[in-house]
Amino acid sequence: MPRYRLTVEYDGSAFVGWQRQENGHSVQAALEDAAAALANGTAVTAFAAGRTDSGVHALGQVVHIDLPRDYPAATVRLALNSHLRPQPVAVVEAALVPDDFHARFSAQKRHYRYRILNRPAIPALDAKRVWHVFVPLDAAVMHDAAQVLLGRHDFTSFRAAACQAKSPVKTLDYLNVSRHGEEVIIETGARSFLHNQVRAMTGTLKLVGEGKWNPTDVQNALDARARSAAGPNAPPGGLYLTRVDYPEMPA
Amino acid sequence: MPRYRLTVEYDGSAFVGWQRQENGHSVQAALEDAAAALANGTAVTAFAAGRTDSGVHALGQVVHIDLPRDYPAATVRLALNSHLRPQPVAVVEAALVPDDFHARFSAQKRHYRYRILNRPAIPALDAKRVWHVFVPLDAAVMHDAAQVLLGRHDFTSFRAAACQAKSPVKTLDYLNVSRHGEEVIIETGARSFLHNQVRAMTGTLKLVGEGKWNPTDVQNALDARARSAAGPNAPPGGLYLTRVDYPEMPA
Repeated sequence: MPRYRLTVEYDGSAFVGWQRQENGHSVQAALEDAAAALANGTAVTAFAAGRTDSGVHALGQVVHIDLPRDYPAATVRLALNSHLRPQPVAVVEAALVPDDFHARFSAQKRHYRYRILNRPAIPALDAKRVWHVFVPLDAAVMHDAAQVLLGRHDFTSFRAAACQAKSPVKTLDYLNVSRHGEEVIIETGARSFLHNQVRAMTGTLKLVGEGKWNPTDVQNALDARARSAAGPNAPPGGLYLTRVDYPEMPA
Repeated sequence: MPRYRLTVEYDGSAFVGWQRQENGHSVQAALEDAAAALANGTAVTAFAAGRTDSGVHALGQVVHIDLPRDYPAATVRLALNSHLRPQPVAVVEAALVPDDFHARFSAQKRHYRYRILNRPAIPALDAKRVWHVFVPLDAAVMHDAAQVLLGRHDFTSFRAAACQAKSPVKTLDYLNVSRHGEEVIIETGARSFLHNQVRAMTGTLKLVGEGKWNPTDVQNALDARARSAAGPNAPPGGLYLTRVDYPEMPA
């Protein structure tokens, strides 16, 4: 059966997360239902590069599906988007790929962005799209502290209890913090992340930004290898899966 | 009674527009109700720099209100935001201003942004925040054509039938079109605009961007002084009132 790679955008606030669940509507179910409609009722399974949590958004999630017929890629995109309406999920791109392409296992790097709205007033337009932090944050100090986390480490201190990864050892490629007007933006990339890792790193860097912690505290939190040693998780609404890199799709 | 200037952000898709109306909830009503709650039940009238239509957003709408007591400006901001929850309206800034300040009549320049999402796929995260145009647009050609509209003109061709302005003659200060990845952004500013003027100019420039019109067609539409001569209104969801300038608040 021909395999298609889909680049997918969604508003995570409308879903229980990527993964199909008993307790609500998932992005996976939305896509699989749309694909089944396109495939005249044949059940289709969708595999994603990153299993985003409830509330987490995607600008460039990558998914693969197998379809029973060899449709043109543009037809797949249009038909899926038509069946997805009016749910806040859009297939931005569809491409026919070799059978050995796997959205999750072929991925070489995942990129995430975290948006903090740093001002006294609550967000109106970006409610559920940003983390509202009213205490002034020093983005330069956050960036310096973030560099402590680069490279290969045991990230147990930044890992959800429910994390299913075999090992807590991951290699963090970059973790950049910068201010853009009222927003503090965190950009990060790695081959893979532990469950909640970006949100835990963000919650920890927020402590640095408001002056409660310094870079040494971040180092100590990492060394402790205990979730309680690092800061709390930042809320899901500020997090965006922006891009996934594959061998045949260089950055 | 002390007068306060409020800088206000809102998601226009949740409202019938700025102005209080019989047929639904307005931003004006939301703010006036919040101000009355702060003023222990005293009725408060809110005046805005721009009476945005239903669906039109604001990042920097300016409003003034008179309150029966001399509250600190930060208290006004916090109390209004508290009473506004969970409606998508936020008072970003509040300031005590002289009694002769008027949000509408003191305004020297209004600035608007129009966001077009120009790609094949529908928007997921930015539904009701952008105009989705799937035909590829040439932003450079749109910018060139836009320059025809600069300066002092009779803008009858870009004016809603319901427009209440005394004269259709306005002076357009700038109208810039540029591409930022998948988005075509239009930025414009003038002392004041006619009703629907930005949306009518945008709908006209879209005809240019897709190659149906050229700059001469835009000139002819302007010269015709008839609404039917120009392009249709762009939808309200792509439009943002970004900033209003006042004598005491230089850009």
